[in-house]
Amino acid sequence: MIAVLGAGHAGRALAADLARRGAEVRLWNRTPDHVAEIAAVGGIKLEGEVGGFGRLDLVTSVMGEALDGADIAMVCVPACAHRDVAATCAPHLADGQSVVLNPGRTFGALEFLHELSLRGCEADVTVAEAATFIFASRTSGPAQSRIMRIKHAVPIAAVPNERTPAVAAALAPWYPQFTAAPSTLDTSFGNVGAVVHPAITLLNTARIENTQGRFDFYIDGVSPGVANLLEAVDRERIAVASLLGVSVRSIKEWLESAYRAIGASLHEAIQANEGYRGILAPPSLDNRYIFEDVPFSLVPMASAGASVGLQPRAIEAVVDLAGLVYDTNFWARGRTLASLGLAGLSPGEIQRVAAEGFPR
Amino acid sequence: MIAVLGAGHAGRALAADLARRGAEVRLWNRTPDHVAEIAAVGGIKLEGEVGGFGRLDLVTSVMGEALDGADIAMVCVPACAHRDVAATCAPHLADGQSVVLNPGRTFGALEFLHELSLRGCEADVTVAEAATFIFASRTSGPAQSRIMRIKHAVPIAAVPNERTPAVAAALAPWYPQFTAAPSTLDTSFGNVGAVVHPAITLLNTARIENTQGRFDFYIDGVSPGVANLLEAVDRERIAVASLLGVSVRSIKEWLESAYRAIGASLHEAIQANEGYRGILAPPSLDNRYIFEDVPFSLVPMASAGASVGLQPRAIEAVVDLAGLVYDTNFWARGRTLASLGLAGLSPGEIQRVAAEGFPR
Repeated sequence: MIAVLGAGHAGRALAADLARRGAEVRLWNRTPDHVAEIAAVGGIKLEGEVGGFGRLDLVTSVMGEALDGADIAMVCVPACAHRDVAATCAPHLADGQSVVLNPGRTFGALEFLHELSLRGCEADVTVAEAATFIFASRTSGPAQSRIMRIKHAVPIAAVPNERTPAVAAALAPWYPQFTAAPSTLDTSFGNVGAVVHPAITLLNTARIENTQGRFDFYIDGVSPGVANLLEAVDRERIAVASLLGVSVRSIKEWLESAYRAIGASLHEAIQANEGYRGILAPPSLDNRYIFEDVPFSLVPMASAGASVGLQPRAIEAVVDLAGLVYDTNFWARGRTLASLGLAGLSPGEIQRVAAEGFPR
Repeated sequence: MIAVLGAGHAGRALAADLARRGAEVRLWNRTPDHVAEIAAVGGIKLEGEVGGFGRLDLVTSVMGEALDGADIAMVCVPACAHRDVAATCAPHLADGQSVVLNPGRTFGALEFLHELSLRGCEADVTVAEAATFIFASRTSGPAQSRIMRIKHAVPIAAVPNERTPAVAAALAPWYPQFTAAPSTLDTSFGNVGAVVHPAITLLNTARIENTQGRFDFYIDGVSPGVANLLEAVDRERIAVASLLGVSVRSIKEWLESAYRAIGASLHEAIQANEGYRGILAPPSLDNRYIFEDVPFSLVPMASAGASVGLQPRAIEAVVDLAGLVYDTNFWARGRTLASLGLAGLSPGEIQRVAAEGFPR
């Protein structure tokens, strides 16, 4: 039995699709009003790439009801809510259960575990993070969801990492595309959204606000100068990962392998990616490209960089700039090694916690 | 007699207009080819707000010829060339001559004096800087220039500052709008282009490159989020100036006094400025809004801030971001207190050099 936690664009689509594929699914959402219609009709209608109706076993706002007897909890909330959801789960988790963050952004699994530990949760729980959300989906009605695209491969890593294959195997009946990554450092630094989302958004600030995002985000929003910034941020992401012993692909390599998009420069590779055509910019500055990717992807990468002797100037410039444009201190709001209980650890110690979890 | 140094958009218009108004004018340009047609026809045709023909006394690429007997040298080259022009002038300057930078950006007069001193120039020369160029003008033919607008008030300050009124008086027969500012710190920190040009350009990087600048730079290029960044940069400009004992107007106050543009916020005031309508963005990223204003306005402001205990995070973020987008180290290319021979001075000592010049 699978508990889906969170009924936004992501959780709604995942709950419906899992149910449609025959899984027993419970859907939890913090605010009952947001799922009242789903509870009334007993499920969620699907449209888009897959159609049908996903009949849910339970729709609830009581975490204990959602988790009781669940094998896996699929967490589908923005990264800013991971810690809250962990706190809410902590009293109800039981030995042998798995929690999967869809996705974890950077260090999501460690933050979840850190909060469980702060809350005194002693259950033997596996916490995993996916590198990205498995669908591109949107809520299309009070009890309806549209899945535009199902992704082909989604790396996933668990803490402790020796349990990653078991988590992937538990999901395989429904989604064989979850593939085991070596550690959560791989999923956390494989986060390419961190590179593209904030930088492109910021360098198109006026255009997003003045046109309500009516332009192609990646095609019109990336020029050679913007690509220079993306490359600088990407180099730092790769360098920090490498100082932590992890090898991640560059965005250019990732574009080639994920989309077969090839170019002499990153700018050309992005322009060559047919998958980017038609993806509009967000309709306002108030969007997850900043509020999720800056504090929960770039800030933890910069913090990890500082801990291993690298000052990631490009990442810092993007975080600083976001703070100025949004008049918000993202450094203080974001995940840092200190907020994760990892301050002062050596690279080897960080690798060990990422692989094995916090010492008990 | 007036020597106009530099025959770009600015120098060409100024030489022509001065000549048209009856001044004896010599025009110097480093590259003879660029002024060959002007030399051939003996002057420059004017169109736009003022028409006519400005007959020049001399067109030359030999600095000694241009300066010999001149009362004032009007330097009309980009800030990146100020030091070179100073080096070229140094052997030829004579007691009593004045040099005016049109404009100086930030610390232009001090840089010019510093270079004269390095070159062993012992002439008693007055070096002044204007806060802005007196025209909006464009070259419109090989020996032709268009003046779109003549500005109403142009603050000017000389080193030593007791001579500012004399410089303004010497220019008054032609341009009474040159008004005496208390010191070059006022003109250097009154530089509002430093605030608006780089930040707006950078936050519209993709749009400039992808549309060749075909949008209204200030109207379409400034949204509330962009205005947040402008305000942060502006606050730091004012704070650094104030730590150096100088009070400068905020951009919002300046918009009201220069353009009668009023709004509840900076964003509204910019949108309310009719003078901004129709000013297109630059056609590419390769433009003076970055290459002049970042190294010769923002970098010296940040450097001055650091010397008086202020870390100007917004200015630093803009300089860092420009460096990343342009793949250029503007910190190393720019004017700093160190490059001006002012490293290690106290605020009072900096004020004294700005007012009186370098100790001999």
